Amino acid sequence: MTVKAYGAHAGDQPLESMDIPRRAAGAHDVQIAIAYCGVCHSDLHQVRGEWAGTVYPCVPGHEIVGTVTAVGAHVTGYQVGDLVGVGCMVDSCKGCEDCEAGLENYCDGMIGTYNSPTPDAPGHTLGGYSEQIVVHERFVLRVRHPREQLAAVAPLLCAGITTYSPLRHWNAGPGKTVGVVGIGGLGHMAIKLARAMGAHVVAFTTSESKRRDAEALGAHEVVVSRDPAAMAAQVKRLDLIVNTVAVPHDLDAYLTLLKRDGTMVLVGAPSSPHPSPQVFNLIMKRRALAGSMIGGIPETQEMLDFCAEHGIVADIEMIRADEINAAYERMLAGDVKYRFVIDSATLAA
Amino acid sequence: MTVKAYGAHAGDQPLESMDIPRRAAGAHDVQIAIAYCGVCHSDLHQVRGEWAGTVYPCVPGHEIVGTVTAVGAHVTGYQVGDLVGVGCMVDSCKGCEDCEAGLENYCDGMIGTYNSPTPDAPGHTLGGYSEQIVVHERFVLRVRHPREQLAAVAPLLCAGITTYSPLRHWNAGPGKTVGVVGIGGLGHMAIKLARAMGAHVVAFTTSESKRRDAEALGAHEVVVSRDPAAMAAQVKRLDLIVNTVAVPHDLDAYLTLLKRDGTMVLVGAPSSPHPSPQVFNLIMKRRALAGSMIGGIPETQEMLDFCAEHGIVADIEMIRADEINAAYERMLAGDVKYRFVIDSATLAA
Repeated sequence: MTVKAYGAHAGDQPLESMDIPRRAAGAHDVQIAIAYCGVCHSDLHQVRGEWAGTVYPCVPGHEIVGTVTAVGAHVTGYQVGDLVGVGCMVDSCKGCEDCEAGLENYCDGMIGTYNSPTPDAPGHTLGGYSEQIVVHERFVLRVRHPREQLAAVAPLLCAGITTYSPLRHWNAGPGKTVGVVGIGGLGHMAIKLARAMGAHVVAFTTSESKRRDAEALGAHEVVVSRDPAAMAAQVKRLDLIVNTVAVPHDLDAYLTLLKRDGTMVLVGAPSSPHPSPQVFNLIMKRRALAGSMIGGIPETQEMLDFCAEHGIVADIEMIRADEINAAYERMLAGDVKYRFVIDSATLAA
Repeated sequence: MTVKAYGAHAGDQPLESMDIPRRAAGAHDVQIAIAYCGVCHSDLHQVRGEWAGTVYPCVPGHEIVGTVTAVGAHVTGYQVGDLVGVGCMVDSCKGCEDCEAGLENYCDGMIGTYNSPTPDAPGHTLGGYSEQIVVHERFVLRVRHPREQLAAVAPLLCAGITTYSPLRHWNAGPGKTVGVVGIGGLGHMAIKLARAMGAHVVAFTTSESKRRDAEALGAHEVVVSRDPAAMAAQVKRLDLIVNTVAVPHDLDAYLTLLKRDGTMVLVGAPSSPHPSPQVFNLIMKRRALAGSMIGGIPETQEMLDFCAEHGIVADIEMIRADEINAAYERMLAGDVKYRFVIDSATLAA
């Protein structure tokens, strides 16, 4: 099967329309007609070759929602017509300790939704900026939101789980004060999710202009990080910080805001390291600096169900496929509230 | 009361004999004739003004053991003749959340055994390189080791608890693989303690010459960190790393050795930061880089009792007080197995 997609033939070229192959659905596969695909900052890093190892043609996209169009003979969990999602992974070894724990995201053999090795042509996975995708049922998620919210569900598959997983792992909830650094694609989800989990939410932004937006997203307090007095007022107040900022910045400014035994979790990976944090800021209050990467499949389903139950979706701006290059530039400029989503119907235009 | 001590009048001057005042024992105080005091790397940093805020005269020393010579009217836990120890703290606010949790070490009002403010003359605390000390009973520990081991118990009060606390907090024990980086004053205790807790212990050293010593201390495996093949064999094997190295070094080389959800705990504070670790190494396996500072009083007593029960003491080299400046130079050169201890009887010489 050949389908329409949008991708790039080299890191220095714009994305363009292309035809790509998709395998026929195997016994354990689910074939999905993609309705919408979110645009993640990782897409840009990968397709432009800013991370090591991009193979071309590169078709990004790992915030995928759509409808099941066919299922393999052994598929038990899904049937034609189901609303489903696919996130950052389409396969893993399925046999290691991590996979057995439902943490396929940490499996050494995890296969990303794009740019990972596969026996399918052309030898590497091609992502969700495309009309169709075929995925092992283990990596398909059920969407229980109303169908009219489907486009805004797409970003939950990456931005949602990337923030939900550390919030759950580090026990965000009633009685906890959670900081969210950066109010973008990831940060706006972290605010909504932490609020829905019952935590007291403090949003940090470099820009006074984002105060009202952060409050509207659910932040109890908004701190402009350029205001020393406002930052000083938060010292030793936070149990957990989810830091979504993927450009190098001063980590000490946030580590000092943690209480004893507090953790700051980095979920964004800058292309060059952050300035090195002071060891004393870790030692003095037994603080930790940690990282977290998306989430496992069971937890992703839990997140989708949690969001459906609490009426949570992403704030999105819909674009046509041929607007993707312009959207990347706007994303780099921070000019999106808060996630672009491609309308897959425009791929064939 | 005036007693003999060893200290410095300025950061650029050697330590020398001096007379210092000690308060009379108050109602809640224990007066202790110091028998031995361990020599910690922090002593050197502080007395030489390498950390901010040293006040002079500076008398270092926070690995104190001795015998009770007097107790205040309200002291219930100790009597004259008891073998006791004093570690890195002599007071705290005793009312905050940290103090109530028995984690006086993380109290914002923690008073260090030296160089902290006190109403006593000369206005800052003076440490254990002295004949006597007077301490609130809450900060006095009971020593249950045989009296003939007393000198080798002294380093447990800092080097012991500094490594015991993170090993316990991050659940070192049977089934866990624990790395210890650096085999010095702290590291040699970490190896002994982790082994006694039942963990599988992997010691890391830059020097092949320390292999036999590390094995003798209890390491199941010894890895020379300059050997790339030996390091590669440890990738993703460790649950916990206690990193005792207080000079800037490559943290990524060790972070990559952690399993998913593993933590590397820094217990040494270099005077300039480590090279910044790669964020990907934290994100990929949900790893954490943490710090830990000594331990609370209840945990310090638990550590001393654990060591008494398991026959654990430090490996020491006894020195006279007037050898302290030479001992500092040898400590900087790594020429000590593994802790110098001052025989307090030589202070009056």
